[in-house]
Amino acid sequence: MTDPKGTAAATSAELSRAAQTQADSVHSSAVGGSQLIVAPVTEAQADIGVIGLAVMGENLILNMASKGFTVAAFNRTTSKVDDFVTGRAKGHTILGADDLPTFVSLLKKPRKVMLMVKAGPAVDAFIEMLAPLLDEGDIIIDGGNTHFPDTVRREKALSEQGLLFVGAGVSGGEEGALTGPSIMPGGNPAAWPALKPIFQTIAAQVHGQPCCDWVGDGGAGHFVKMVHNGIEYADMQMISEAYSLLSGVLHLSASEIGMIFEEWNKGELDSYLIEITAEILHKTDDETGKPMVDVILDTAGQKGTGKWTSVTALDVGAPANTIAEAVFARILSSLKDQRVAASEVLRGPDLSDEGDFDTLDRATFTEQVRRALYASKICSYAQGFQMMELAAAEYGWTLNFGAIAQMWRGGCIIRAAFLDKIKAAFDQNAALPNLLLDAYFTQAVDGAQGAWRQVVATSALRGVWTPAFSSALAYYDGYRQARLSANILQAQRDYFGAHTYERVDKPRGEFFHTNWTGRGGTTASSTYNV
Amino acid sequence: MTDPKGTAAATSAELSRAAQTQADSVHSSAVGGSQLIVAPVTEAQADIGVIGLAVMGENLILNMASKGFTVAAFNRTTSKVDDFVTGRAKGHTILGADDLPTFVSLLKKPRKVMLMVKAGPAVDAFIEMLAPLLDEGDIIIDGGNTHFPDTVRREKALSEQGLLFVGAGVSGGEEGALTGPSIMPGGNPAAWPALKPIFQTIAAQVHGQPCCDWVGDGGAGHFVKMVHNGIEYADMQMISEAYSLLSGVLHLSASEIGMIFEEWNKGELDSYLIEITAEILHKTDDETGKPMVDVILDTAGQKGTGKWTSVTALDVGAPANTIAEAVFARILSSLKDQRVAASEVLRGPDLSDEGDFDTLDRATFTEQVRRALYASKICSYAQGFQMMELAAAEYGWTLNFGAIAQMWRGGCIIRAAFLDKIKAAFDQNAALPNLLLDAYFTQAVDGAQGAWRQVVATSALRGVWTPAFSSALAYYDGYRQARLSANILQAQRDYFGAHTYERVDKPRGEFFHTNWTGRGGTTASSTYNV
Repeated sequence: MTDPKGTAAATSAELSRAAQTQADSVHSSAVGGSQLIVAPVTEAQADIGVIGLAVMGENLILNMASKGFTVAAFNRTTSKVDDFVTGRAKGHTILGADDLPTFVSLLKKPRKVMLMVKAGPAVDAFIEMLAPLLDEGDIIIDGGNTHFPDTVRREKALSEQGLLFVGAGVSGGEEGALTGPSIMPGGNPAAWPALKPIFQTIAAQVHGQPCCDWVGDGGAGHFVKMVHNGIEYADMQMISEAYSLLSGVLHLSASEIGMIFEEWNKGELDSYLIEITAEILHKTDDETGKPMVDVILDTAGQKGTGKWTSVTALDVGAPANTIAEAVFARILSSLKDQRVAASEVLRGPDLSDEGDFDTLDRATFTEQVRRALYASKICSYAQGFQMMELAAAEYGWTLNFGAIAQMWRGGCIIRAAFLDKIKAAFDQNAALPNLLLDAYFTQAVDGAQGAWRQVVATSALRGVWTPAFSSALAYYDGYRQARLSANILQAQRDYFGAHTYERVDKPRGEFFHTNWTGRGGTTASSTYNV
Repeated sequence: MTDPKGTAAATSAELSRAAQTQADSVHSSAVGGSQLIVAPVTEAQADIGVIGLAVMGENLILNMASKGFTVAAFNRTTSKVDDFVTGRAKGHTILGADDLPTFVSLLKKPRKVMLMVKAGPAVDAFIEMLAPLLDEGDIIIDGGNTHFPDTVRREKALSEQGLLFVGAGVSGGEEGALTGPSIMPGGNPAAWPALKPIFQTIAAQVHGQPCCDWVGDGGAGHFVKMVHNGIEYADMQMISEAYSLLSGVLHLSASEIGMIFEEWNKGELDSYLIEITAEILHKTDDETGKPMVDVILDTAGQKGTGKWTSVTALDVGAPANTIAEAVFARILSSLKDQRVAASEVLRGPDLSDEGDFDTLDRATFTEQVRRALYASKICSYAQGFQMMELAAAEYGWTLNFGAIAQMWRGGCIIRAAFLDKIKAAFDQNAALPNLLLDAYFTQAVDGAQGAWRQVVATSALRGVWTPAFSSALAYYDGYRQARLSANILQAQRDYFGAHTYERVDKPRGEFFHTNWTGRGGTTASSTYNV
């Protein structure tokens, strides 16, 4: 069997036999080549190997195989390899291996090993086991949700060993992995020519372009994936706030709101998350006959990537308040018992004067909510891109923001039509300091702001919880103003801590101190930090 | 000179001579005692020693001396010791030392050495130099703005060497240090009996009680100081937002707003920050004759403690969104050049229909702003205390929240009359899960909420930047609701990532998955994290 394409996958048992026979030569081989594997595989023929057979790994392998690549598969619990090879992988160009030397021996050089294992110690453990089996110029890709500083560290360490390390963010969930995810690879750029044909082929394609491109050095790939997830948190929170408004103010049912979302998905808001939310809102619970959303508990979990984004924003000095509010919103939702107790004690607004919305108002308010959602969404993307610009400067990366918008255009959870507009904005001005300053987005927000302001005001007056909508509006109102009230803060800081201030009528970088009380000494403040 | 109290301070030159004579015996002394110092000091007589003669250190020493304590003083740049001893310290019971062995030899046992140096490596450097000079049971206090994990680490390491380490938050700025700061000590509890008489004497006193008490183990003291600073960020931001509203909506002048703040300071808002803001607003710039606040640049600096608070809130899962918004507000203010450019492009709301406020409306709106400020302030304190409760559980500390309120009642930057109400709330119910649930605060916020909602709505409609006011309202509206819109998030997460959800009609801890599309496989999600 010289070309297994189109034939049944080699079983793990067969490969295990091959490995037992050839393991020693695999270990010591510096060439890798036709001598490595006996029956049924006669040569190192896999284009890439994937370690980790949870749903994302399996689906990514099936995706690769469906595009004509031969893929080696390994899992620490080897029974999963057997199950996969005899199950979902059957009939595909997928070669299972029961141990790492066999797995490595199956790979064409430069070998490309993709880890789809849980972020953290498991990644380090596999790298440690793999490195002695690999040769100079071989490539290890971490496709997990790794925190980017870990990727920076690993890339550096492996580079010193002559190995090329890539941290690739992969988004799209299980279905995206299978049919075409968004892939955001960064790390050692020498790895990219070998990876590009595979990654750009298996990635989602939009307008004939792959949703995968080289992101940048070091941890840039995982960093961009992290920001993607932070934006995802905000997107999801905003959609839930739109639902809250339609449900809480207009008293619409789940399926009525589902129909509104279907409509919205035909316009500016066209996106995966709006689409699936419409489907979700139409889904009925088999057990109770109620809408599914009405039986699902309102406590949102998180796995930390939104938190990382918020912490990194604080670290690099990026005003990503809406993304942080989305994380705090999940935290607040998780304090369910406290909220239930508090709801018995804390009152909302007196709505006796507010009246109900008539049919005409309903249509108007629904459209206002749509505009508020779009304007808020633009602001959270503006925050995400602004954060990437500040981080690129901080970490010394060169990021191509148009390419990032293209990577997010399809495949991933936040995929949306309006990413075309973002791509166009950065294609036109690669150094655009803020998305809001691109003509399309300036106009989009300006056109929406009247409605957006009405919606945020209505939430405040009627007690609807919309932290993302209102923080996005605050971001807009802060960013667009040449002068903010921070002069008061600087005066306070100089008053109590002698922290000094700059003046509006002097060049930047000249610092002044006022003896506000007449009592202050002349000793400089150098230890007290506010 | 056996008792230098009331006499001129020993000069550095005199002590330097003593040190040169006795340095070796000081080094090897295991007893410390009368034999250490020759002329002019004949015994180890200092109650405490302070290292670091920036303004906070100097003022703290002068405070201690004014309360009858004898204080040894040292600084790395020894010319500062000379300047201090011959300058501000002259006539006080303050003994300068030109080297560490001399400094240590001046201290009564158990020796108490307080570091008032820049947080970070300088603290470790001094600990490393001091430790060999000290004996078992001696005490090192770090009075700087240290990040609490560093205090945890140092306390543990020194405990293993038989030394007692205390991390003490000190707030009050230079004036507080001199006249009575708030001191928040935590760390090795064995140190407290020896420190208590000094710290509780030099601290601010309110209602006959010191604004200093033992906070807890490990890093608890610096943790509580950090939360203090986070609340301080929010307090300052909210005051600046009130100023924005009075200035931007009512077009009042700085001194008119100053008069309003003076009035506010007589009521519920009575606090140091309101008081100094009133003074600030009345201050005129000598150079231009304009109000000072009108010539101060609107770019607020920060030194990181508010950031730490926000990051820690995210780490322990505390919904401290308003504190985080205050940090992001400073970040946004610092992007001055971007804002100036954006102000040329991005438009605010169309106010042509809004009209102006007449005199009656002005009084009404001013009172609404006052109420909004008070309600928002209560929410940020609620967040701070909630965060301390969650952190105490996380880090294994036992915190006395009533005592913390008392510590913040005077001396520190956030000192305010309403901390009496907070103390009363926790004295009545030490396990109060949220300040908002105390009857006084429940009523206070309920009484203010109508005005608060109007103010937040007005900000949204008129484009006034009030991120802290609106995020505080969102916190209130989220916390008081038994059911939030997070059911939508959980449905989305289960849809695209098979993350499962809980149900409203099943016990907590049972997780369900819906095959939303009919296409999903059975392989479990274990690597994909959102």
